[in-house]
Amino acid sequence: MSSTGRPQTQATGSPGAAVLDDVASGRRTVAEIAQAHLDTIRALEPEIQAFVHLDPRAVRAAARELDRVPPGSPERPLLGLPVGIKDLIDTDDQPTEYGSRLFAGHRPARDAAVVRMLRDAGALVTGKTVTTEFACFSPGKTRNPVDLERTPGGSSSGSAAAVAAGMLPVALGTQTAGSVIRPASFCGIVGFKPTFGAIDRDGVFPISETLDTVGLLSRSVADASAVFDVVRSSASRGNGRTGFVRGVDAATRIGFARPVEWERADPSTREGIDALRLKLMDSGLEALETALPPDFDGLTAAQCLVMDFEVSKALKSRCEKNPEMVSESLLEVLRRGASISVADYSAAMELAERCKAMLPDLFDGVDALLVPAVIGEAPRGLQATGDPLFCRSWTLLQCPAISLPLLRGPNGLPVGVQLVGNLNTDDNLLKTAQTLMDWSVEFAQP
Amino acid sequence: MSSTGRPQTQATGSPGAAVLDDVASGRRTVAEIAQAHLDTIRALEPEIQAFVHLDPRAVRAAARELDRVPPGSPERPLLGLPVGIKDLIDTDDQPTEYGSRLFAGHRPARDAAVVRMLRDAGALVTGKTVTTEFACFSPGKTRNPVDLERTPGGSSSGSAAAVAAGMLPVALGTQTAGSVIRPASFCGIVGFKPTFGAIDRDGVFPISETLDTVGLLSRSVADASAVFDVVRSSASRGNGRTGFVRGVDAATRIGFARPVEWERADPSTREGIDALRLKLMDSGLEALETALPPDFDGLTAAQCLVMDFEVSKALKSRCEKNPEMVSESLLEVLRRGASISVADYSAAMELAERCKAMLPDLFDGVDALLVPAVIGEAPRGLQATGDPLFCRSWTLLQCPAISLPLLRGPNGLPVGVQLVGNLNTDDNLLKTAQTLMDWSVEFAQP
Repeated sequence: MSSTGRPQTQATGSPGAAVLDDVASGRRTVAEIAQAHLDTIRALEPEIQAFVHLDPRAVRAAARELDRVPPGSPERPLLGLPVGIKDLIDTDDQPTEYGSRLFAGHRPARDAAVVRMLRDAGALVTGKTVTTEFACFSPGKTRNPVDLERTPGGSSSGSAAAVAAGMLPVALGTQTAGSVIRPASFCGIVGFKPTFGAIDRDGVFPISETLDTVGLLSRSVADASAVFDVVRSSASRGNGRTGFVRGVDAATRIGFARPVEWERADPSTREGIDALRLKLMDSGLEALETALPPDFDGLTAAQCLVMDFEVSKALKSRCEKNPEMVSESLLEVLRRGASISVADYSAAMELAERCKAMLPDLFDGVDALLVPAVIGEAPRGLQATGDPLFCRSWTLLQCPAISLPLLRGPNGLPVGVQLVGNLNTDDNLLKTAQTLMDWSVEFAQP
Repeated sequence: MSSTGRPQTQATGSPGAAVLDDVASGRRTVAEIAQAHLDTIRALEPEIQAFVHLDPRAVRAAARELDRVPPGSPERPLLGLPVGIKDLIDTDDQPTEYGSRLFAGHRPARDAAVVRMLRDAGALVTGKTVTTEFACFSPGKTRNPVDLERTPGGSSSGSAAAVAAGMLPVALGTQTAGSVIRPASFCGIVGFKPTFGAIDRDGVFPISETLDTVGLLSRSVADASAVFDVVRSSASRGNGRTGFVRGVDAATRIGFARPVEWERADPSTREGIDALRLKLMDSGLEALETALPPDFDGLTAAQCLVMDFEVSKALKSRCEKNPEMVSESLLEVLRRGASISVADYSAAMELAERCKAMLPDLFDGVDALLVPAVIGEAPRGLQATGDPLFCRSWTLLQCPAISLPLLRGPNGLPVGVQLVGNLNTDDNLLKTAQTLMDWSVEFAQP
């Protein structure tokens, strides 16, 4: 059975905000915070397997360094916040292997731009988290903390699992198809994929020029928002900070949309979303039904094509030089991508452009669209990471999207819903997401 | 004695254009071109020492691959062009050591953006050229082909020497103070530093956020222009290609300016520039005298301060972890930079902003300013790479600049002159430079 509107226990609270508050007020040192998280990691990591690299001694040393910064320094808005880094993202003090045997032991010379921004803001970089092979579909070792026999989703598997298990308050992910939204949804946490390009990709292993987007895994919208404020580009920042406000904003208008793949969602997911709409209306929020333009029906197929084409361009020659160190499934993707004609690729890109031009109209009367994040609960087994079906369109359109843990599936496991915003309206999307979360606490208890 | 207006033998001809023409017309295969350059390198490298890494077998294999591309393909405008890559710039198939023992044997995972663009355009990446330590002032092993007892200049030492010696038609450099203009000037070739940011810096080891600029070393303005057309950012491209035209454009207006450091140039350099102005006027070109605003007098000191501050920020903690692998002179720079106050740094940045706001007026009546590129001939000895005195201001202002080999010093060695353009007028600067080179061939023979 699906019980809608009930907030996930995993997602209540804002552990990131709590850490920042403790450090700023002098209640806890960064060293104490680091040790508390390392203790949790030590206890849970043998089962969860979220990390590909973690050096507790280096984390403790970095924490002691951060304790020399005066608390409350405005230059260090993330002072003492432990953050996990998906191992697709370069760090200059830790190996970065991109989930591939081709890069076993690889040491980048420099931090990725987003890592540099985190460190400059006082964040405590705490280990590298498991990614699937080159952020594609061949899974890593990580288990879903909600049910160890299930996949945590991918490709940001380790980041989602570490945050869901309470090993870290926040972690970086990336999304090319559904790699932030899906694992967040499966693990019962918040996954935020900003507008394409809102977070600098410099130093993130590129697999798809058009699609790769850096995102955040967290336990609350507020925590995602606090980190996003630091790592977003100045172009994305627009006129200042998110100006985060708590409480249900009655003026929020949410458009419930049924993508062409709607019937492929599990019945409990569909029922959950329908029930969510009725409950929102009951409590006086605007929950509209929004029709997607017919051209949008082709976006999922177009995303598959663009991704296969670009991933093949990015990885094929490298992987085929040492095919014995590459998974058969990735080699198959690379072959498939190489057989796509430039004409087909261009047609897919043109469809995306055409649909992007429709976004202003589509978002004219609503703050965000609400669509499924995933088909349903995390699939059993670790041999696959689940289907990014309901994310592909929005990633191709480069829209900001956020997964909120508002549903449960037939086994009582978390299922996210996906809020999608118009391009470059990340602030408004975060505000809308916060309204929905606050509403779920205030109004939707069973 | 200084003989002005006489073109350097080293700089005549456009070997890059000749290569492209030979490949496009089928006159020579890429493999033949590669072998011819490898033969030159083998003959001269023992004396010049321009390369830090070169794998002839890999170059030949890449050349054979390029020979499978149909000649004249519009997607491969640089098909078969050998290009050297300064070892500050990442390559995914060759070590990249940034001139530092800290990175001995370092293998980047990815090509820098500019290298990727070159490869995509069909260029033949031919080895990594010597850089000074982290592109600062501690020299590498390279000798000046014009006089082996003299420095080739730095930090793009290997790129300038390889191009000057005919080992390569074109090579990439970078400039933070004067590292493209100065070695070009000392080696008697063309050095082009585009407007800041016109060539993507992704994958170039950063030492100064405000100053680092990717540039080109070549034997002719046309060759620099052809490569720039491929690697420039789309923002820099503006409305299409450079539209390169040969011949003296009589409407060209050149403003001869005397920076406050003018008297520190060698007498022969000053006399050479004065004589150049008279000859230009004699042949009917507009060669004006342009006064620099008084505020510009502080720019050289401001650039030193900004550079020391930012280089220290970028390198200090890394270098001080293993000081035994870092030159004493760099450690001294890092200490000096660390002692600069944020207030002084901000004041220097503000002066730069104030002066940038004056650029539209300054360039109102002229296409380019002509100023010294260097004090004079390359200094004797290899223990230092010469003074970037006359480049610092323009690098801080982020203006495009090009060094043209139009003078000779008292020992008959090449001395460049520097043409500087307004921000984002790179196309016009290249056109002006070409006019000056064409004029020097047509009118200025002794």
